[in-house]
Formats: sequence, C-alpha cells, structure tokens
Amino acid sequence: MTAPLKTVEADTAAVMPEIGQRARKAARVLALAATVQKDKALAAIAETIRRRKADILAANAEDIAEAERNGTSAAFLDRLALDEKRVAAMADGVDVIRDLADPVGEVTESWTRPNGMTIDRVRVPLGVIGIIYESRPNVTADAAALCLKAGNAAILRGGSDSQRSNRAIHAAIADGLLEVGLPADAIQLVPTRDRAAVGMMLAGLDGAIDVIVPRGGKSLVARVQQEARVPVFAHLEGICHVYIDKAASLDMAKSIVLNAKMRRTGVCGAAETLLVDRAAAPTHLKPLVTMLLDAGCEVRGDDTTRKLDARVKPASEEDWSTEYLDSIIAARVVDSVDDAIAHIDRYGSHHTDSIITDDKAAAEKFLREVDSAIVLHNASTQFADGGEFGFGAEIGIATGRFHARGPVGAEQLTSFNYRVRGSGQIRP
Amino acid sequence: MTAPLKTVEADTAAVMPEIGQRARKAARVLALAATVQKDKALAAIAETIRRRKADILAANAEDIAEAERNGTSAAFLDRLALDEKRVAAMADGVDVIRDLADPVGEVTESWTRPNGMTIDRVRVPLGVIGIIYESRPNVTADAAALCLKAGNAAILRGGSDSQRSNRAIHAAIADGLLEVGLPADAIQLVPTRDRAAVGMMLAGLDGAIDVIVPRGGKSLVARVQQEARVPVFAHLEGICHVYIDKAASLDMAKSIVLNAKMRRTGVCGAAETLLVDRAAAPTHLKPLVTMLLDAGCEVRGDDTTRKLDARVKPASEEDWSTEYLDSIIAARVVDSVDDAIAHIDRYGSHHTDSIITDDKAAAEKFLREVDSAIVLHNASTQFADGGEFGFGAEIGIATGRFHARGPVGAEQLTSFNYRVRGSGQIRP
Repeated sequence: MTAPLKTVEADTAAVMPEIGQRARKAARVLALAATVQKDKALAAIAETIRRRKADILAANAEDIAEAERNGTSAAFLDRLALDEKRVAAMADGVDVIRDLADPVGEVTESWTRPNGMTIDRVRVPLGVIGIIYESRPNVTADAAALCLKAGNAAILRGGSDSQRSNRAIHAAIADGLLEVGLPADAIQLVPTRDRAAVGMMLAGLDGAIDVIVPRGGKSLVARVQQEARVPVFAHLEGICHVYIDKAASLDMAKSIVLNAKMRRTGVCGAAETLLVDRAAAPTHLKPLVTMLLDAGCEVRGDDTTRKLDARVKPASEEDWSTEYLDSIIAARVVDSVDDAIAHIDRYGSHHTDSIITDDKAAAEKFLREVDSAIVLHNASTQFADGGEFGFGAEIGIATGRFHARGPVGAEQLTSFNYRVRGSGQIRP
Repeated sequence: MTAPLKTVEADTAAVMPEIGQRARKAARVLALAATVQKDKALAAIAETIRRRKADILAANAEDIAEAERNGTSAAFLDRLALDEKRVAAMADGVDVIRDLADPVGEVTESWTRPNGMTIDRVRVPLGVIGIIYESRPNVTADAAALCLKAGNAAILRGGSDSQRSNRAIHAAIADGLLEVGLPADAIQLVPTRDRAAVGMMLAGLDGAIDVIVPRGGKSLVARVQQEARVPVFAHLEGICHVYIDKAASLDMAKSIVLNAKMRRTGVCGAAETLLVDRAAAPTHLKPLVTMLLDAGCEVRGDDTTRKLDARVKPASEEDWSTEYLDSIIAARVVDSVDDAIAHIDRYGSHHTDSIITDDKAAAEKFLREVDSAIVLHNASTQFADGGEFGFGAEIGIATGRFHARGPVGAEQLTSFNYRVRGSGQIRP
C-alpha cells in the first residue's frame, strides 16, 4: 500500500491541467449529489482511514525518517508526525463533518414579486477548491471532508515532506468515494513535488479552480495572497487586541486577558496587544501586567507601563504591528475608546478584537466601529474559531471582505443562485 | 462651470495613489455615517443635479461636439448625449436609490452559543469601489449614488469622451456631499484621460480599492476580468437560453420566447438560444420559428429547424456560444430536459436561463441542475435585472460565484462582520 516514494516524473505542465479538468467534471457530479450520498461517502472515508491505520502510520514513518535525515526541526517533525491517536482523531473529524447540516440547497431568502413570480435564493457549491498546505497530514482529510460536505471538488497540494502520508490518507478518501459511487476525481492529490504545480494552481488551472485556501505559515499565505489570480480564503496574520475600558471589571479583565494571550499563544486568535484606557490605568494596568509577567509572558510596554514593573521591556513602533504567536504581549495606555479604535484601525489586521467594559455605550461603539472580522465584548479573542462559533468545523479564518469573512465553514464554501418560479410572466 | 477641457497634465503615477488614500480615508467616514446623513446627501445630490442642468448640458454639448469631430458612430453619440429628460432621469434615479433601505447595520443572522455568548452577523460596507465605464455619463450619478447608499467610497473612471459631462455631474455630487458634511473624497472622479490610470485601478491602487465594477462593452469587461488583481463584479456575456419542454403550453412558450428575445435585444438577459424538446418539436417548433421570423428575428437553426421554413439560416457550432445582442436567435432540438441542461452547461455563460413547461418535475430538475446565476420557470429571461428582482437599483449583473451573483444592488455592495456579546466568557 505504501510503496517507497517514487518522485513522480510526470510532466507537471501536462498533468496539472488534466487534474483541473477532471476536478471540474467531478464538481458537477458532487454539486448534484444527494446529501445522503455525500454523508455515506464521508462515513466510508472515516471507516477506511480507521481500517488503514497501519498503512498510514507506515507511510508517515517513512516521511519522518526522510525528514530526520534532512535535519528538520523538532517543531516541524511534530507537525508531520502521526500516531494512533492522531489517525483516530482524523477519522473522528470526518465523522463530525458528516454530522453537520448540508448547506447545499438551503433556501436563504424567498420573496414574491408584484407580478406573482417567486424568487428563491438557494445555496449551491462553489465548485473546485484548491488547498495548498504544509506539513500537517491531517489537513488532507479535514479539508477534503469539508469540501465534500459542501458539494465541492478539491485539489490538494500538500507539503513535499508529507507526501507519503498524504498519499496513504488520500487513497482512503478515494476508496471511500468510489465505495458509494462518487467519482474519485472529486478529491485529487497533486502527485508531484514539483513546486511549479503550486504556481499553476495559483493561476487557477485554466479556470478550473474557483478558490484557493492556503493552510500553513505566514510565508505560504503571503505567497498565495500575492500570486493568486483566483479568490483566496485566508488571513495573513491575527494581530488581535484586548481593550480594557475605564468601566471594565478588573476581575473580568484579568480572566479574559490571561485567556486571550496565554491559553494558546500560537493560534491566530491569540491577543498580541493590550490597550488600557488612561482612566483605568491607575487601577487596572499594574494588576494586568503583573499577572501576565507572573504567568511567564514577556510584556513590551509604553512609558507608563514600563514604570509599573522593572520586568517590562520597552515597546518599539514595530511591536504594535507584530504577531508574536508566542508568550509576548505589547501593552500601552490609550486616551479613550476612540483612541483604542484608532490604534486598532492603524496597527491591527482586521481579524479579532475585544473590548472589556461594563459600559454598554462604549461596548456598542467598539462593536460598531472596529472594522474586524470578529469584534467581541466581554469575551476572549481566542473564540475566533469555527467550532466555537457553532460551525462544527472550519477550513480556516478569512480576513478578506468578500464572500467569506471570519471562520470559513461548510456554509462559506458555498455560493448561491436565484431560482424564479413564474406562470408565464413576461417583462413589460 | 464647464471650462474648456484641459487635458490634465497630472503625473498619473503620483495622482492615482493619492486618490486611493483619500478614498480609503473617506470610506471610513462613510462606513460610520448615519442612514439619515447618507440620505440627505443623496437628496442634495439629486437637487444639485437638477439645479445645474444647464451646466451639465453645456458640458455634454462640448463632449458631443468633440466626439462628432472625431467621427464617432451614431450609436456612440446616443450613449454619450444628454438632454433635459435624461438629466431629470439621472436625478430621479438618485432619489430612487435614496428611498431604498440602508443595508448597513442590518443583522442578517443572530444566535446564542451554549456558553451564553450571542453572535450577530451584521452588514458593513465593502470599502472602496472602483468603477470603470465608457461613454454613458449617467453612470457617474447612478454608480456614485448606489455606492454611497451602501456606505462605500467610489473612484470613478469614465470614458475619455464624456470627461466634461462627468466632471459637471461629479461637481454636483461633490457639492451635495459637502452640503451635508460628508467628505467630497467619498466620490472621486479620476481627473486624467491617461489610460495608465485604468491599469493602476485594476492593480488595486496599493490596496486602496476593494472591488472593481466595469460598466461597458465586452472588450472593457474582458480587459478588466483579465487584468484585475482585486475582485470584479461583472458578467462578460449573457448567453441566455429558453428551453421549451414537451409539456410546455404553446401560447405561453410563444409569449415568453418573443419577450425573451425581442423585448430588447441589446440587454444581457435577452435570449440568444432557443432549445426545443424533440417531443414538442412537431407541435411547437414551427409556430415559434414562424413567430420569430415574422417579428423580424433572424433564426439560425439545426437541420430540423431549417426544414420548417426556408428563411431559417444554418447554425454553425459557433452560434451556440454567441451573444448576438441583436435580432438573431440560434435554435435547435434537444432530446430531453437532461440534454437541454447539458447544452446550457456546455455553451452557456452561467447568466440566465429559462424552462417553459407545465411539468413540475421537469421544472424542478431544470431549476436545480442549471448552474446559472438566475434560473427561471415559465418566465422571461429579460427579468434578469435588479429592478425586476425588487432591489430598486443595480450596478450590474455578476456571473462570478463569489460574494455577488446575479443582480448587484446595494445589499451586494456590503460585506459583514461578526459581533459577539459576552459576559466574561473565556475559552476552555
């Protein structure tokens, strides 16, 4: 099952357009597939992944061995490595997606015109989704399952280092599709390590790809956003702010700031900047800073903040627009909620920002005026997650203003059209 | 008011980024402007256009004179020419847009999570909209008003031939904005005839433009779709089909086909291809073809159709994918509703298609399986229009699958964000 990796000598320029055409054709079948058939396919995929656990782990072991020979970092190896638990979690993830409601066919609006015509706005699949990812092999199953749920075909281009693992997982997916009579071409894995394949996907494969979803680090996302000629669902960075208003409860502020920064520092919804209202600084700033420092978080502060604790390091201009993804936070005093909003507008990344206050007017102002995908009042920025929003699963978080903004779940992987029912109406 | 046109010697490379920055700044003000203030601005703009009628007509006369000297076509001159009635209609159009509901701030979804957080999905403006158009000066007022209604800033780049007319109309818009205290930069007119300005807009003006809307002929739209590095709301062509099912009422088929083809032949929703079920051909095809020919429509048919009337010309393969925008229709027999759907999938442009039938199952199959922005049952394709959909006004019709599909009205010129209200929730 997991033959030693032959670097596919395929002519990328010939193979990739063929993949695109096959995906386009399969997308048409997927778009019209019944919910029950898609769900059966997802069940079969989960089951096949479980049954082939040994094959998948063997393939992964070969990837790991090669990566070790190439001297990759421990963090990289951790992302690449699968074990029994991770394979089981991958299969369970497919089951979770299967249990979601099918967004396709949902009538989101319906109205009747004065001439008697009824107009329905109905969700339809987007088409063909290109996913470009790095070392995590579980993306192969996650992304494929979410695309399939929403009736889309997918073209997967995983990292070169996880190629054997991805092939083993993809083989399970293809067999699951075939088992229920759906085309295996609905979920294709790019068979070559040739980096030119990525460029071809970003150009849209002659119109075959409708949207690109990059999954990986900032340099991958930056390249995709810069080069893609088709829409991209992504965020480059999450420079998330927590603003402590003068009317904030100190207990709530402490609890939320600690959670927003330290629950997990490597996620895009982790807070990177703490803003404290000047009027709250005398009472709130020192306890918050002490708490963060004591929790092992480096604090880089403005002059006011530095005076509070010798452990606070000076913040440079660059700190206000830095996504640390680490136990570091930038902290400063602002003059008002307006000043906080202006700071976020200038330095933020339009991802996720939160205000802590008991003043309803200040909260509503912040919610209305902060131009980010997610704006919260009295809640942690770490809720920036499709699961936490109730979407069941997400393929990522987008900060663009088009189509999908915030968590991208099954619903965001659909388009819509208008279906008009008449009784002979002609236009005057 | 309408000084002779000085070709602006501005350095396009310097002027355009500045326009972008000013638009971005104004967009922030517009996004937060109250409905009543935007509506007052629209009222002031309509009033100023009416008051400056003489100036606008004088400017237009100069454009017309220059166009005549340059020997442009009569059709071109008709698109360019304004008269009292057209100026009045332009002002009335602004009032119609003022009367629409403000989409900004509308809560489209709202739910509560098990932890007590409530999540609202709220419409917000898109940002800065770039409009690139050709000779019709009324687009200056129409597009500006619709962008303004939805809280967006706009950068207008009209045709060189209508530059004086556009400036006179734009002056009225700017004064209307200033009158109510909104920034004139919210609606800017590119001051140069330099074609490089269009290329800079298509590249997004350093991130200042969020979406491009081209208004004009196919070559303009094609250029925009090919070169734009930002999202585009447009359709390249409307190859619209009417399919006459075997269960179609002949009277209804005749009425709808005549309307769909001949009501106005130059609109994107005009039918270009007639498909007739083989089972209906003996009874329906000849009356339909005769009716079209008698109405002055050229019919290009397949072999079956040609045998019915000597006036029918042969259809070539190219005819099935040609948008005539003229009194010409391609006609052929298909084997079934499936065959009709396959024909539309192969040759259509995913714009607007209609089935005529009394068979509900056939209608539902067609509505579900035809992958076009608008699919109709027993109604004319000429209903492909924002006004006919009840949107009040439209900036165009889009055939892309992202964000806006079908008629693009005020609502489609908005994005959304999530506003989360908590009471101290942290993520476990």
